[in-house]
Amino acid sequence: MVFGSPYSLAFRYQKKTPFIAMQKKMNVQILGIAKYLPKTILQNTELETKLELPVGHIYHRNGVKARHVAREEYHETTVNMGSWALQRALNMAELEANALDLIIFASAGAEQAIPDTAPLIQRNLKLGNSGIACFSVHSTCLSFLTAVDIAANFIANQRYRNIGIVCSERSSTSIDPADPMTYTLFGDAACAVVLGPTQATETSNILNIHFSTFGDGAHLTQIPGCGTKIHPNGKETQYADNTFRMKGKEVLRYALKKAPEVLPKIWDNQNNWSDLDIIVPHQTSKVGMHAFLRHFPEDRIVRTLARYGNCVSVSIPLGLEEAIRTKKLLRGQRALLIGTGAGFSIGGIVLEY
Amino acid sequence: MVFGSPYSLAFRYQKKTPFIAMQKKMNVQILGIAKYLPKTILQNTELETKLELPVGHIYHRNGVKARHVAREEYHETTVNMGSWALQRALNMAELEANALDLIIFASAGAEQAIPDTAPLIQRNLKLGNSGIACFSVHSTCLSFLTAVDIAANFIANQRYRNIGIVCSERSSTSIDPADPMTYTLFGDAACAVVLGPTQATETSNILNIHFSTFGDGAHLTQIPGCGTKIHPNGKETQYADNTFRMKGKEVLRYALKKAPEVLPKIWDNQNNWSDLDIIVPHQTSKVGMHAFLRHFPEDRIVRTLARYGNCVSVSIPLGLEEAIRTKKLLRGQRALLIGTGAGFSIGGIVLEY
Repeated sequence: MVFGSPYSLAFRYQKKTPFIAMQKKMNVQILGIAKYLPKTILQNTELETKLELPVGHIYHRNGVKARHVAREEYHETTVNMGSWALQRALNMAELEANALDLIIFASAGAEQAIPDTAPLIQRNLKLGNSGIACFSVHSTCLSFLTAVDIAANFIANQRYRNIGIVCSERSSTSIDPADPMTYTLFGDAACAVVLGPTQATETSNILNIHFSTFGDGAHLTQIPGCGTKIHPNGKETQYADNTFRMKGKEVLRYALKKAPEVLPKIWDNQNNWSDLDIIVPHQTSKVGMHAFLRHFPEDRIVRTLARYGNCVSVSIPLGLEEAIRTKKLLRGQRALLIGTGAGFSIGGIVLEY
Repeated sequence: MVFGSPYSLAFRYQKKTPFIAMQKKMNVQILGIAKYLPKTILQNTELETKLELPVGHIYHRNGVKARHVAREEYHETTVNMGSWALQRALNMAELEANALDLIIFASAGAEQAIPDTAPLIQRNLKLGNSGIACFSVHSTCLSFLTAVDIAANFIANQRYRNIGIVCSERSSTSIDPADPMTYTLFGDAACAVVLGPTQATETSNILNIHFSTFGDGAHLTQIPGCGTKIHPNGKETQYADNTFRMKGKEVLRYALKKAPEVLPKIWDNQNNWSDLDIIVPHQTSKVGMHAFLRHFPEDRIVRTLARYGNCVSVSIPLGLEEAIRTKKLLRGQRALLIGTGAGFSIGGIVLEY
């Protein structure tokens, strides 16, 4: 493992030279993490009756047994679920909300187009006059990892001190009940993390972060609408344009093709994964998780797919929250957070909790 | 001016103490900057005829004389306009496209909901198999400044070397022709910047970055639709939900109220703005620009409002591009980039070009 500058400044005007380099270790830690799961649990039996599918079909097909579904009657909006999770994460961190310097909303979905969702969460936490900086990031299922990357570099560079990252997805709003494949796979949830600098007496840090995006696979996972290409008000816009569609088999094939190239950039010690205590993968689907097992030791993998479904950007922090809460990840132990996302992207973070 | 760490780590678990501190100077520079303006120019005369407004009414009202409008026939999509601008910025930087380490798409609008727009631009530049990391940020009109903040901290912390930031807005898609206030104000455009580390022989740097967000003002500027709150497929979703709406006078009043609190955090030497060579404000509207002049010296302010309208996230980089291209901002000179955005946010960056 080599740390330090991954490149010489002298390379600036030259074609990028290929390198596999770990980045500088960053003295950043998780101060708090918490989730919000909608009150309503939708079991497969109910869905199988509704969709006229044989009993047991859904679990056999995608590995999901139940998923939480946000309901208006419980005010489970994207903003509320995210705010509740962030408040709980602040409680765990023993931080007052106004000790935050920045709130990053990091999800595929948003409450509305403008403003972005972060200021709406800030207002919801009675911080609407605080001035705490806010913005949103979006890299679909990897949005949480992207936000951690941004936040960790801000903290390491002393730009900000305490940063709240909020992921909140209400996929149930934008999946098509006529498409059993996606309708049975996704679940609603929110999860938030508070990051801050590691103190001198503490050992927590972030060892490496890497993302690879291959736009050639951008067509494999899409909501083609809700933008300038197929605007909601367009005369020819169809219902299906605003729903999620995924070429499941092709995504899997593409991911397996790219994994050998990308994994060494995430962690260069793959022949011996024993130096990782726990692995928190994005919970894509049954076949996605099986493919994942080709590369990683099964006994250290966190699984939430059966209980929560694929929660888009929330799946990775949700798995991390579970690992920390159930003491499968203790202070000083090492975790790999890893996933794939629309784009097509593969990303991972190795941290010492 | 005091540089260095703005806080002590010992404050972590305490309530945030108020401070006004400039951050660490970052050795980051603009390697290239370029724009794309749609071919079609829509003059006020044409709009005044269409909307049955008196001749001269629009300019008198909002300060806009003409705006560029993206057309399908010229393939002026959000992705294409952004890609063309980024390619030109790379040309100016004398960098091959694959020398980029990261592409950040930074706009209020997007091509489609999933994937985010950055991978689509990557693919468009024939980089679809490059692996170059991609994600999107959104803080409405301040998206460019947010992306520069993220990119500069990445570069300063040696996380990445060359970063492309792309802003591309096709507001014409989501403004309501029945609302003359917004329909006559906004323009379409794209602008891209390539950032990289400053070499030992160079002086470029970023002196300070600050953002303040006040969620209490989130309702003043909105597109309430296109999210989970009012989904395009919702039974009660109306045309107007997917269009831009702004409480112009209230935004102005709110901005003027907050400015005295925020401006000293952007630059602590306001009593003497003479140490800034040029000021590039977001081009909000005629009254917005007038309000701005209360705080800044008129002769150093870049103006593009009359020619291009309010281009949302693109207005600030468009002004910067003009200042650099027309040599109003030379290497070694100091610029302030500043603006307001939905949220409600005020943000600014002081840099030495």
